[in-house]
Amino acid sequence: MSVRPGAAFSIPVRIYYEDTDAAGVVYYAGYLRFMERARTEWLRSLGYELDELTRREGIVFAVRSVKVDYVSPARLNDRVDVSVELKRARGASFLLAQRLTRNDTVLCEGDVLVACLDARDFVPRRLPQAMQSKLNAWKTP
Amino acid sequence: MSVRPGAAFSIPVRIYYEDTDAAGVVYYAGYLRFMERARTEWLRSLGYELDELTRREGIVFAVRSVKVDYVSPARLNDRVDVSVELKRARGASFLLAQRLTRNDTVLCEGDVLVACLDARDFVPRRLPQAMQSKLNAWKTP
Amino acid sequence: MSVRPGAAFSIPVRIYYEDTDAAGVVYYAGYLRFMERARTEWLRSLGYELDELTRREGIVFAVRSVKVDYVSPARLNDRVDVSVELKRARGASFLLAQRLTRNDTVLCEGDVLVACLDARDFVPRRLPQAMQSKLNAWKTP
Amino acid sequence: MSVRPGAAFSIPVRIYYEDTDAAGVVYYAGYLRFMERARTEWLRSLGYELDELTRREGIVFAVRSVKVDYVSPARLNDRVDVSVELKRARGASFLLAQRLTRNDTVLCEGDVLVACLDARDFVPRRLPQAMQSKLNAWKTP
Repeated sequence: MSVRPGAAFSIPVRIYYEDTDAAGVVYYAGYLRFMERARTEWLRSLGYELDELTRREGIVFAVRSVKVDYVSPARLNDRVDVSVELKRARGASFLLAQRLTRNDTVLCEGDVLVACLDARDFVPRRLPQAMQSKLNAWKTP
Repeated sequence: MSVRPGAAFSIPVRIYYEDTDAAGVVYYAGYLRFMERARTEWLRSLGYELDELTRREGIVFAVRSVKVDYVSPARLNDRVDVSVELKRARGASFLLAQRLTRNDTVLCEGDVLVACLDARDFVPRRLPQAMQSKLNAWKTP
Repeated sequence: MSVRPGAAFSIPVRIYYEDTDAAGVVYYAGYLRFMERARTEWLRSLGYELDELTRREGIVFAVRSVKVDYVSPARLNDRVDVSVELKRARGASFLLAQRLTRNDTVLCEGDVLVACLDARDFVPRRLPQAMQSKLNAWKTP
Repeated sequence: MSVRPGAAFSIPVRIYYEDTDAAGVVYYAGYLRFMERARTEWLRSLGYELDELTRREGIVFAVRSVKVDYVSPARLNDRVDVSVELKRARGASFLLAQRLTRNDTVLCEGDVLVACLDARDFVPRRLPQAMQSKLNAWKTP
């Protein structure tokens, strides 16, 4: 399964004891933590810091839905890559495809729909226009 | 959204600081931990202990896929209910519908596909026949 | 190691996969999560809800220090008891002795110093007088 | 509080939503996860991989006790440093001083006693002689 050049952002993640469970593999909720780290670093790479977005724009991001397939387990000490690919950014949400790989092996992949919310009352808010443009510009290599 | 009488099992879960994040609500991966607690208690209520299943039958269960909609956030100190409803148990897997509610409010719901694996090599194994029958008998009220 | 009758509060905790690690036992930070659950339930049993304390009194509790001995590991599916014993409540903090046991076996024990802070700026605040009295009354059977 | 040059190893850690709680700061058990990451990377820097130590030497490391002071909270998006300093390695255990800092601010510090155990029965095992020598050589700059 190849990743289109230029279309994906990824970060390396090391698997520690904290991430594993008694079956010897990464606990299934842990993959969602890794995906969120990658989303955060992807936004940072585009100039967006989550705490600043809350302070300056009054918005927070919240996951609205996830659809994840667990293909092959990650294990203690593995070094995996966690990627982010934007599928669309429109209105008050953006949809990402995310994938964990170890070398050429896909471990886990899924779609994550992220909503933009007002930080005070959690009511949906349109993505700031500049941000929506920037995300979509990044999308097309 | 009502639950068919007799068709669902549920456990109460209290939300502690450990479950929340800086947005003041339960972190999105945490709901999967609660769902797994409910699955474990559901199996226990049917006579199956996870550690015994590994020791006696040589099997472990692993989540193959999840599809979760986050509808409304759970907050610190909430007491929520986490339910399990069997959709099917067949071959080497079973599919569950799970839901978190606070009073009459749906917070989160989704489908979880659980695979039965050999505990040593993680190769798929058919559900023990007695177990498959028991799960399916439970399904139909 | 016996607990003075009347002097300790405890809650049962079940060990799930989320709590274990690849060594087959509970991950060492997890015991602190269980201790916090017991503290929360202890305060609740005395009439104090953490979210209400923040809303009404403007205070939060923060752990200032922990000293924990890991004596024997808890394992998947174990049912353990987590206890709270007040050693002192004075000024802007209280000191607790906490212990995890499985049947008669001590698994983990330690002292936890909890500070009372202003919820806005995290500056130390004296415990509300009524609360300090109530905690100390509970202490002496 | 300065660190003696050459005497400490440290890694950077970024604070994500997964690490924070509803008080807006890092949950107190989370600091122990960061400390374990630093210990793992420190051992890796000395040539020891935890999974290999289990496979080849039949040993695992388990924390025997921690003593941690929480000085100042880490917050969302902070980049902190987590250090490891060896105080002694002898017999079947080693004692570390660990510290989290953000720029020049100490956030959290403590002592962690780590035991070397047989991976099968968790009985204490002497540190492999070469490892004990290597750890102690690293200690003295």
